[in-house]
Parts: sequence; C-alpha cells; structure tokens
Amino acid sequence: MKIKLILVMSTLLTIFSAAAQTSKIADQWRTLDSERTVLLTLPHGKVVIELAPQFSPKHVEQFIKLTKAGHYDGNKFYRVIDGFVAQGGPEDGSRQDKLVPTLTMEGDFTTDENWQFTKIQEDDLFAEQTGFKDGFSLAHNPSEKKAWLTHCPGVIAMARSNDADSASSHFYIVNGQATRYLDRIMTIFGRVVYGMNHVQAITRTSVIEGDTPVAEKNYTSMTSMKMMSDVPKEQQILLAVKNTEHPAFSEMIEKRKRRENAFFYKKPPPVLDICQTPVKSRIVN
Amino acid sequence: MKIKLILVMSTLLTIFSAAAQTSKIADQWRTLDSERTVLLTLPHGKVVIELAPQFSPKHVEQFIKLTKAGHYDGNKFYRVIDGFVAQGGPEDGSRQDKLVPTLTMEGDFTTDENWQFTKIQEDDLFAEQTGFKDGFSLAHNPSEKKAWLTHCPGVIAMARSNDADSASSHFYIVNGQATRYLDRIMTIFGRVVYGMNHVQAITRTSVIEGDTPVAEKNYTSMTSMKMMSDVPKEQQILLAVKNTEHPAFSEMIEKRKRRENAFFYKKPPPVLDICQTPVKSRIVN
Repeated sequence: MKIKLILVMSTLLTIFSAAAQTSKIADQWRTLDSERTVLLTLPHGKVVIELAPQFSPKHVEQFIKLTKAGHYDGNKFYRVIDGFVAQGGPEDGSRQDKLVPTLTMEGDFTTDENWQFTKIQEDDLFAEQTGFKDGFSLAHNPSEKKAWLTHCPGVIAMARSNDADSASSHFYIVNGQATRYLDRIMTIFGRVVYGMNHVQAITRTSVIEGDTPVAEKNYTSMTSMKMMSDVPKEQQILLAVKNTEHPAFSEMIEKRKRRENAFFYKKPPPVLDICQTPVKSRIVN
Repeated sequence: MKIKLILVMSTLLTIFSAAAQTSKIADQWRTLDSERTVLLTLPHGKVVIELAPQFSPKHVEQFIKLTKAGHYDGNKFYRVIDGFVAQGGPEDGSRQDKLVPTLTMEGDFTTDENWQFTKIQEDDLFAEQTGFKDGFSLAHNPSEKKAWLTHCPGVIAMARSNDADSASSHFYIVNGQATRYLDRIMTIFGRVVYGMNHVQAITRTSVIEGDTPVAEKNYTSMTSMKMMSDVPKEQQILLAVKNTEHPAFSEMIEKRKRRENAFFYKKPPPVLDICQTPVKSRIVN
C-alpha cells in the first residue's frame, strides 16, 4: 500500500514536472490564432501571414472579408521590383475590384506615457525608438506620442493611389531591404511568418531597367489565399512565434547587441537594426 | 555639287549628333567587364555577380582561380537562413577544400583626405558616412580614415571560422535585410547584379527553429560557377550598371531624398539607407 502510494505520487510528480517544463518553454512562444492567420498558396510554395488587427483593425477586417470571398484567388503579382516589393491584386479596373470600399489610412497610432513595447534601439535613422510588440516590429516617437509598424522585409501592406485613403484590396509584400521611407504613409496589416523564400522567388516584372518588360503571362499568380481556419485540417500549417514580451526575448536582444561570440574578433557598434532582429517561428502541427 | 555637299554635311551632322546622344546616355551606365563578372547557374535560374578587385584584390584573385578550376561546380548551399545569408562551398573536410590557401582579411581599407565617393548619407547607424564607389555601397569613417564595403542584400563575401584570416573558398550571399554588423569583420568581394530572386529562392536549410531540419538531399546546389568570359558567347548575360560617379546618379540621390512625388502626401525623414538605394543594371546583349 505504502509502495503503491509512493509510485502514484512519484508518477504525479513526474507529470507535474513535465507539465511545468512544457509551460515554461511554451511561454517563450505564442501559438498563432488560425482565425488571424492567412495561407497564401503560390505555384512554387506555401506562405503563412500573421495579421495584425490590434494595429490595423479596419484593414485586417477588409482583408479577411476579401480573402473569405475568394477575391485574391488567381490574382497576379503585377508589380514586382527587386529590393522593393511584390505587389498583387485583382486585374486593374475589374468590376469585382470596383465594388471594394476604400479604407482610411491606419499608418500610425497615438501613444501615451503608459504605452510600452520591447525596445531594441534608440536613434534609429527613421525614428526615435524601435522595438517589438506582439511579434511585430514598430517605431515610436515619444516626442510626438506616435508609434507605427515598420516596413521590414516580409510585411504586408495595402497599396494605394496618391490619396492617403484610397487603399482597397491591392497589397504588397516587402521583398528586400526594409522600405522604411514608406512608414506611416502606408498601412501595414500583417507579416510573413513562414515561406519568405517563396515570396522572394516571385517573378520580377521589372527585372532590369531598359530590358524588354516581362510578359504578363509570366507573372506569378496566387493559386489561392485562404484564412488558415478555412483550410482542411490536414493542409493547415500551424505556427508558434517567439513571444516578444517574454523576458527571454529581451535577454536575446541584449545578448545580440553585445556580440560576445568569439566569431566577433572585432566588435561591431552595439546597435541593432529593427529589421535585422529576427522574431523566429516554428511549425507546431 | 552644292546639294551633294549639304547632304553629306547633314548626314555627318546626324551621325555626330547620334554619337553624342549615345555617349551621353552611355556615360550614365558602365558596361561590366566579363573577366570580372561571374555566372552562377542554379537549378532554378541564372545569377550574375560583379567582382570587386579594386576593394578586395586577394579575395577576388582566389575566387577567380577557384571558379576557373571548377571548384564550386556541384557545391551545395548548406547554411541558408531567412533574412540572413545563403552560404555554400565544397563539402566540409573534402580533400579538395583543404588544398585551398587561407586569405588575409580585406574587411576595410585606409583613406586619406583626397579619398572620394558619392556620399548619400551622414550619421548612418553603423558608420559616419555611407555612399557609392564604382557601383558598390560603402561606409566611411573620416575620423578613423577607414572605409569598407557594406553588407547590403546581394553582396557576396567569404565565410570564415573565428580566426579573422581563415577564409578560403566557402562564401555567402546576403539574402535579406542588410547584415551590417558583419561589416569590416568579413571580406565582401562582389555583389549580385542580376537574378537576386533566384538567390533568394535558395532552399532554407533552417526554415523554422524547432522543426525537423531540412534533409541534405533537398539543399540547393550550384549547377555551375563560371567566369562570364569563359561562357560560350550565346549563353553570356552582359550587363551595364548605373555609373555611380556620374552627376545624374547624384541628382537621382538628391531627388530620392526629397520624395517630391505626389504619392508622398506626408514626407518621410530626408534620409537614405545605403542598402535601400538601388544601383540599377540592364542587359546589353
């Protein structure tokens, strides 16, 4: 009897300990909500995008509505420039596209003295501070009480004409060096968390200035754009991304600034570029 | 007789005028020397690299020697990390690789008060000044009298172990946001001038942290690496790139800073990121 009890207790302890261990690891990762995650299928691979309704609610709402309606299925990436963006959407002037309402710019938002993020750098080229919140990269100007999502590689934003509030459904994904000069004047509403190599492989429509333009028939098309929650379970890609609010993330940032590895025989300046600081993801299904 | 003379003169004038026009345009472009240009053939596309012997003579000399010997043909990209680099070279520990001499670091060089480049920015995050010379992006610290090639997307540099002077033949190409913290401690010796989409499509060997590693059989291999001058004429890709010493290039830079296009309904800070300033190329054959 005594032995049995000890065995039971020992088993329970093992279970508790394993659970605690799992939870401790899990805290450093945040599992993505499949209702806020998009699966973009390209002819050459799959891309997963996390949406950012907490920063750009109206744009995300409209993008989800359009995605669920199949608005993007079969659309083409018609403006793809190396080191800039891959832009796509329904054929210009199509009847379908004219029915989509335009959106009011959500390029930045107001902060107060209680607003916080995981700061990584002061005195960035384009802002007073940069850092992360909910896995997204942001810039913050405390002097103006304004913050905004930054144009790092892999962010998805709505395209527009000259009018600030003219975006509707056409979007772009930054495919090269951060286009930070577009910060605050375009609405970013998500970021690629998986399959960036497939985004970057999208055929450039203007490969070389002065060369014959790429024929439209060679443009890369979107096989489909679906909410992850609407994809059959066996085809879903479920991801967890690093929790940028966890102390372990801040520790990683500080460590990265110090560059203590012996590889750095001469240390670089102790600064971090917000767009060169990875927020890693991993498949969980 | 008089009429004939006029006709001849008129023809001559037309010829002179056309020549002047061509030369004026041509000055803005610099045709690449096929003896300093490399054709990297990947299974999914062709990539052209311009070498930089004027900045990293010893590394370029060795890279050309290795390329001509077929050292890289069939090699794999065995370390490919999203937003970082695609690194490749001969199988580690191969006999062939052990015969390659190591190189002394050519990470930066000394400047004097007469040293010039086409400056684009002061107060960069990692340097006192940034700019271009011969189509390559550089940083300059006048206070130290040092300049160096910068790690922008598409630059090719030699990999090394912890020892500064341990590089030999393994190389990497920056595939995402500029890895500027590697400036001066790695030797950049060229840059991709065509086919960056194919470089960026190289299979990531570490797609997702925590996921099963990518099987070696799925690594992208280099079908061949050849000097452009050694490629049969009909397979050559001959390029011209913008002449960064031409006044038109400086004008483009100033214009880019001002962002006068109506699209910029609110102007971004008048700064330029050296790695977000394109030096365009075009096919000339």
